[in-house]
Amino acid sequence: MRTLHHHPLSPFSRKVRVALAEKRLEFTAEMVKPWERQEEFLMLNPAGEVPVLVEEDGLVVAHHLAICEYLEDAYPDSSLLGRDVAVRAEVRRLSAWFDVKFGAEVTDNLVGEKLYKRLSGQGQPYPQAIRAGHANIHYHLDYIAWLSERRTWLAGDDFSLADIAAAAQLSTIDYMGDVPWDEHPEAKSWYARVKSRPAFRSLLADNVPGVVPPKHYADLDF
Amino acid sequence: MRTLHHHPLSPFSRKVRVALAEKRLEFTAEMVKPWERQEEFLMLNPAGEVPVLVEEDGLVVAHHLAICEYLEDAYPDSSLLGRDVAVRAEVRRLSAWFDVKFGAEVTDNLVGEKLYKRLSGQGQPYPQAIRAGHANIHYHLDYIAWLSERRTWLAGDDFSLADIAAAAQLSTIDYMGDVPWDEHPEAKSWYARVKSRPAFRSLLADNVPGVVPPKHYADLDF
Repeated sequence: MRTLHHHPLSPFSRKVRVALAEKRLEFTAEMVKPWERQEEFLMLNPAGEVPVLVEEDGLVVAHHLAICEYLEDAYPDSSLLGRDVAVRAEVRRLSAWFDVKFGAEVTDNLVGEKLYKRLSGQGQPYPQAIRAGHANIHYHLDYIAWLSERRTWLAGDDFSLADIAAAAQLSTIDYMGDVPWDEHPEAKSWYARVKSRPAFRSLLADNVPGVVPPKHYADLDF
Repeated sequence: MRTLHHHPLSPFSRKVRVALAEKRLEFTAEMVKPWERQEEFLMLNPAGEVPVLVEEDGLVVAHHLAICEYLEDAYPDSSLLGRDVAVRAEVRRLSAWFDVKFGAEVTDNLVGEKLYKRLSGQGQPYPQAIRAGHANIHYHLDYIAWLSERRTWLAGDDFSLADIAAAAQLSTIDYMGDVPWDEHPEAKSWYARVKSRPAFRSLLADNVPGVVPPKHYADLDF
């Protein structure tokens, strides 16, 4: 059986879990605590990061970017990038926006400071970072609203990896109840559409030991 | 004519310049100072980051990841990823290693602190970060040595985007004379092979106003 080594608070793990589910590729989820730097896991990925995919034939694919592109290469059905080169470029631009920019400006400052540091025993959260995260999330939600007013999905007519990348980041923050949905109704309505996809279901059932999500987290009608 | 908006100290711009040259795709290089946040440039890329590629037909491709994958989609000859899915996964894993991990642990700490801050008027360099950069570069050079002892090029038998991503980061640091080549002869010999490729030539002719590179920077026999 295919195995995905992941952590429930890693937005990149979430991105790959949804991508696998959208492509209807079954897998066993193996939870890793990357901060423990277990030797067995470092043998799979010397970077020590989740996610890592191990195929049934033993092929190891490490790093969320490599995994998502690999899934398109190896299982081109239900493409998450589209067929047209211009659309694919836009999907990848927006995926990078959420992976990198949203990740650094919002997720690292909120999930990283408030939860990841505690779980991994990396010291106290840094209040200035948390404040920055709360401030930054607004302009990203505005950008999602701007895009979804003009397009069916974030990158164009079709649901794509761009939607998955954005929702993966937001879902980890939503797990802490830190997304100001009420101030961003358009972004909320886009997220409700993503959330109701069957491929998103496993994320809503996530349970991080010691951290209880708010009631609306798994609610499709939040 | 195809245009690449870039900055000579951006490793991601350098990566795309080499990728274009390896594919023998001509382009006009347009230098951008991203920190000036010029409106015209923000219209091309709301993230405000270089590189951005504009094709002759007007297609705008923003973000180095989107550009490199786009070049493979649109110009599959002289592939920089290879044909085999497992090789492509390894090329992408290592490209991400150098783009993200090396970038954060080394380039941001050295080029970011020492040069980028000065050029963009973002305050004083942070000595602890510079020390971290100088310490971290050794284990990355060891990793390059480890890989190139086992393989012809970093990701396998063929020159690939992984070599380009690694050399793009290292070349910006080498521009400041901060790569301890003499302590890492295997990494040096791999870099000498990359440096001697015709596609690398334009990088060696780079000139950042106000920053003179060391003599060995453009020397193929350094």
